[in-house]
Amino acid sequence: MGYTYVRKGRIFTMIKERLAKLREAMKEAGIDCYIIPTSDYHNSEYVSEYFMVRKYFSGFTGSAGTLVVHEDKAALFTDGRYFIQAARQLEGSGIALMKMGEPSVPELKEYVERELFEGRNIGFDGRVVTAGEGLEFERIAQKKGGKVIWNLDLASGIWKERPKLSFTPVYVLEERYCGESAQDKLQRLRDKMQAEGASVHILTTLDDIAWLFNLRADDVKSCPVLLAYAAVTGKEAYLFAGRDAFDGDVREYLEENHITLRPYDEFYAYAAGLGQEGDASLLICEKRINYRLKKELGEGVKLIDRPNPTTFMKAVKNQTERENLRKAHLMDAVAVTKFMYWLKKNVGKIAMTELSAAEYLEELRSQNPSFIEPSFSTICAYGANGAIIHYGATPESCAQIQAKGMLMVDSGGHYFEGSTDITRTFILGEITQEMRQHFTLVARAMLRLKSIKFLKGCKGVNLDLAAREVFWEKGFDYKHGTGHGVGYLLNVHEGPNNFRFKPAAGSDEGWEFEEGMVTTDEPGIYIEGSHGVRTENELLCRKAFENEYGQFMEFEDLTYVPIDLDGIDASEMDEKEKKILNEYHESVFEKLFPFFEGEELRWLRNATRKI
Amino acid sequence: MGYTYVRKGRIFTMIKERLAKLREAMKEAGIDCYIIPTSDYHNSEYVSEYFMVRKYFSGFTGSAGTLVVHEDKAALFTDGRYFIQAARQLEGSGIALMKMGEPSVPELKEYVERELFEGRNIGFDGRVVTAGEGLEFERIAQKKGGKVIWNLDLASGIWKERPKLSFTPVYVLEERYCGESAQDKLQRLRDKMQAEGASVHILTTLDDIAWLFNLRADDVKSCPVLLAYAAVTGKEAYLFAGRDAFDGDVREYLEENHITLRPYDEFYAYAAGLGQEGDASLLICEKRINYRLKKELGEGVKLIDRPNPTTFMKAVKNQTERENLRKAHLMDAVAVTKFMYWLKKNVGKIAMTELSAAEYLEELRSQNPSFIEPSFSTICAYGANGAIIHYGATPESCAQIQAKGMLMVDSGGHYFEGSTDITRTFILGEITQEMRQHFTLVARAMLRLKSIKFLKGCKGVNLDLAAREVFWEKGFDYKHGTGHGVGYLLNVHEGPNNFRFKPAAGSDEGWEFEEGMVTTDEPGIYIEGSHGVRTENELLCRKAFENEYGQFMEFEDLTYVPIDLDGIDASEMDEKEKKILNEYHESVFEKLFPFFEGEELRWLRNATRKI
Repeated sequence: MGYTYVRKGRIFTMIKERLAKLREAMKEAGIDCYIIPTSDYHNSEYVSEYFMVRKYFSGFTGSAGTLVVHEDKAALFTDGRYFIQAARQLEGSGIALMKMGEPSVPELKEYVERELFEGRNIGFDGRVVTAGEGLEFERIAQKKGGKVIWNLDLASGIWKERPKLSFTPVYVLEERYCGESAQDKLQRLRDKMQAEGASVHILTTLDDIAWLFNLRADDVKSCPVLLAYAAVTGKEAYLFAGRDAFDGDVREYLEENHITLRPYDEFYAYAAGLGQEGDASLLICEKRINYRLKKELGEGVKLIDRPNPTTFMKAVKNQTERENLRKAHLMDAVAVTKFMYWLKKNVGKIAMTELSAAEYLEELRSQNPSFIEPSFSTICAYGANGAIIHYGATPESCAQIQAKGMLMVDSGGHYFEGSTDITRTFILGEITQEMRQHFTLVARAMLRLKSIKFLKGCKGVNLDLAAREVFWEKGFDYKHGTGHGVGYLLNVHEGPNNFRFKPAAGSDEGWEFEEGMVTTDEPGIYIEGSHGVRTENELLCRKAFENEYGQFMEFEDLTYVPIDLDGIDASEMDEKEKKILNEYHESVFEKLFPFFEGEELRWLRNATRKI
Repeated sequence: MGYTYVRKGRIFTMIKERLAKLREAMKEAGIDCYIIPTSDYHNSEYVSEYFMVRKYFSGFTGSAGTLVVHEDKAALFTDGRYFIQAARQLEGSGIALMKMGEPSVPELKEYVERELFEGRNIGFDGRVVTAGEGLEFERIAQKKGGKVIWNLDLASGIWKERPKLSFTPVYVLEERYCGESAQDKLQRLRDKMQAEGASVHILTTLDDIAWLFNLRADDVKSCPVLLAYAAVTGKEAYLFAGRDAFDGDVREYLEENHITLRPYDEFYAYAAGLGQEGDASLLICEKRINYRLKKELGEGVKLIDRPNPTTFMKAVKNQTERENLRKAHLMDAVAVTKFMYWLKKNVGKIAMTELSAAEYLEELRSQNPSFIEPSFSTICAYGANGAIIHYGATPESCAQIQAKGMLMVDSGGHYFEGSTDITRTFILGEITQEMRQHFTLVARAMLRLKSIKFLKGCKGVNLDLAAREVFWEKGFDYKHGTGHGVGYLLNVHEGPNNFRFKPAAGSDEGWEFEEGMVTTDEPGIYIEGSHGVRTENELLCRKAFENEYGQFMEFEDLTYVPIDLDGIDASEMDEKEKKILNEYHESVFEKLFPFFEGEELRWLRNATRKI
């Protein structure tokens, strides 16, 4: 404890020094309010080290948050997943925590407007702010008689040890994995462009680009993307990327597919030149491009603002991807189930911590030759840490795991056969009746949603209730969506499909579920200072049957790992829920038994028994 | 049967003659495609006789449908509620039935565009088409090099016996009924106008106008509104209406409330004059005004397009209205329950038809001095007629009710204490096991929805699943919303609240449920040629409890009428559903027993018994 305290003190001195330097730079540039979101130039959810400016200036390590710095104060806006973690990490820094969505907390834009003096300026790096947000800040500044200063990255002069932009080696994802050639994808994209009357399409989002060209790299931790921009015309396809990241084979592949490689730095000049030689009708998703691109686009360009067609195209997994995903999830389930066996058998007998347990799980996953890396930083949260929705253990804070209470493990793997995301909460010994009720409630919600049938045309806003209804019935809720789409060897959070009862800030109302979409189903319960439970399966949408009422849809389980029956209170479940659980466990056993033997197999039989 | 056949023949000859005359008028006016929707000048759902032009030219009597007439063909577009009825009524007329929403059926606008020749014109009466629709038709005509001709009502020269515009006597709804003075409502409205920066607000929707001024009349059957337009400025309020409909007392009331009465005919001249003397910022709901108003508005007018503030204001019933509604529903429940007793006791013993049963129910309702009129045309549908969602019996087609099968009765009353809408399906004798399963399924869906708890912020799109989930589980659906808002001594269909999984055509995504909103809960099942079941309660939204997760909401039953236990198969229900049903029936008995005695009371005890 003493050590942590001293360390914390050192960190806050550092943060204060950094903010002081930032304020000097702001003064020099004539900026009254400097905004540092958590993003890269591509509106990515997770960013590489180079872009971790908000973390550098605030000390808050969560994956989402915006720091707003004034001369005399600073505030960090973050969402419900990070309230507990941010409160801990900001304590003593002088930075106020703004809990987004809480009744008394202003929205970011409201706050920026309220705190800006007349005639003063707002500053931000126009590449890390979306066009929509930038225009909002512009409106606020103009209202106050000031302006936005968007062409300065103030971090660059202050952050001396800043890492370089990451351009790791690029590789081609073979067709036996991705199921469709880049040429075919480009053709489908060009058909959509033609239907929209567009002569050019610009893509800045890294997952769209990786998917379209069947390329992968390692430029963002756990996101196998390459840092790049792309432009597609009726005949040409340009990839603006780090040239050295492409070896001879990959360059050859690009040539074969008529994709022209150009330097990453040339992108804005290309965009500015659009429309200078004749008409350019540009299909672009204004919600996802950055403010600088919006500002630099040539005047003669006619904008056609639509969601990127690739967003929908990649969400609907093709037959090859579906088959591969079933394999990836089976490999993954074997690893996670063996982890469960190991954990429950050894807890209290051998020393284990949140970090060492997570490492052991990664070791099990990596025994499979198709395993590439974890699909995100494993959340391995013991006891009260389970209440921190996106908990990340560090060597300093990491808890010892003991033979009581619960361990929540939210983890996943990238395989050539696809990406996985699974959460299980394990019972390690004695738990309270309240914990058992909460564990059972979470399982019921997850099971109910995964088993619904619905008419084609439903969106996430329609179906979220299937999970949340039993929570609300008992006066509980969880401050996150019930589920999100998952990419194929790509981002583990991928739109446009989701399960949410309110659309996420800045997102669409959600899209209709289509056959081939993959979505997580992960309700949770979080009791601060005590415990957390989350149980997560991935679901593949498929057709159920068609009759006079229309096309009915349903979900196929991709995840096959036991739900810890030591946490289940069967008296809290109705007959239908028990039937779903028993059928699920029966199929878990059927899928997994060939990979188990001896004592492990007997354990598996018991772990998937009928209740 | 022979008689019906002859009559049908006569009707179709008439329809063909009328269409021939219309086509002559179209030719003369240079119109290639004439569109006749079902509306009045106020975008009303139900219209007075004067406006029943579509019925006059097609013979289809449903409440919704659009007739599109070309020189060589005619088509009627209507929705799922009317597929069976429209097919019957159009048979032999030569008018094609376009089943809206069916996969192979084009949308109205698609059809109009597809069938319009180059350079030809579209015609309609600009007062019975919304601004949005009119602009769409304008776009289609322009695309084809033609124009829209919107200032002709071709029916006026053809329909000789057309009734006059209806201006019935206007009365003031006292404050003990409506709970808020017109002056207070006007003040709240002016506050909203100021917040939107509007200097004028125009209202053309009859329910908004009646609510705002606390006035009622009888200008549309079952809709106690007055035919009027209204305009409100910071200081003035104008009511454009039929002057003779106002007696001295009502005129005095208007003066006291600073409301200026002006002739109905002067409205468009007033609108055209806006903005001619200085600025006019006009708050208006473009979705709900007619095309002519949109066209005639002065050029200098700045439009602020928002939903009418009164739409939301009137949906949230005040404390007086809530108290009154509880009384109205109790009176109504006594009448409907006594009807149920009479029906089940006498069926097969005395002669009864769909119409005579409906008349008896109206007689029971009218025994209450507060009863004004039915709140819509009673749907009293025996056997296979129950499968016609909005069935209307006529003296010619009316079925005899026998001591077998089921009778569906969807009815309601207007009382000074509010409006009611209730559906019950009654078991009259022997029914098949399939019918019993369907009856039970409908009851389960209705009960599940009415009992949910949910976080504030939910809309109808989120909650619809609570009813529909059990339907979808078994591969059933119903082609209508699960519920709609209900006005207070006003339209029985009232926005903005509803239960729908897809927004209705042209409507918003729905609004958050607020305490004080009244919504119906009415799932149904419709087996063509066999039977139909619908069970409907009205629900009043209220606060449940607040905790760390937020404000939880729930519904209070307004409707207290037994659900016929003769149709229930308890083995199809889970424990929770049985509990909800038993608790509901217990409270039905508690509410109603003071109004029953002797044999009737013993029957009520049994009809509300525990299962």
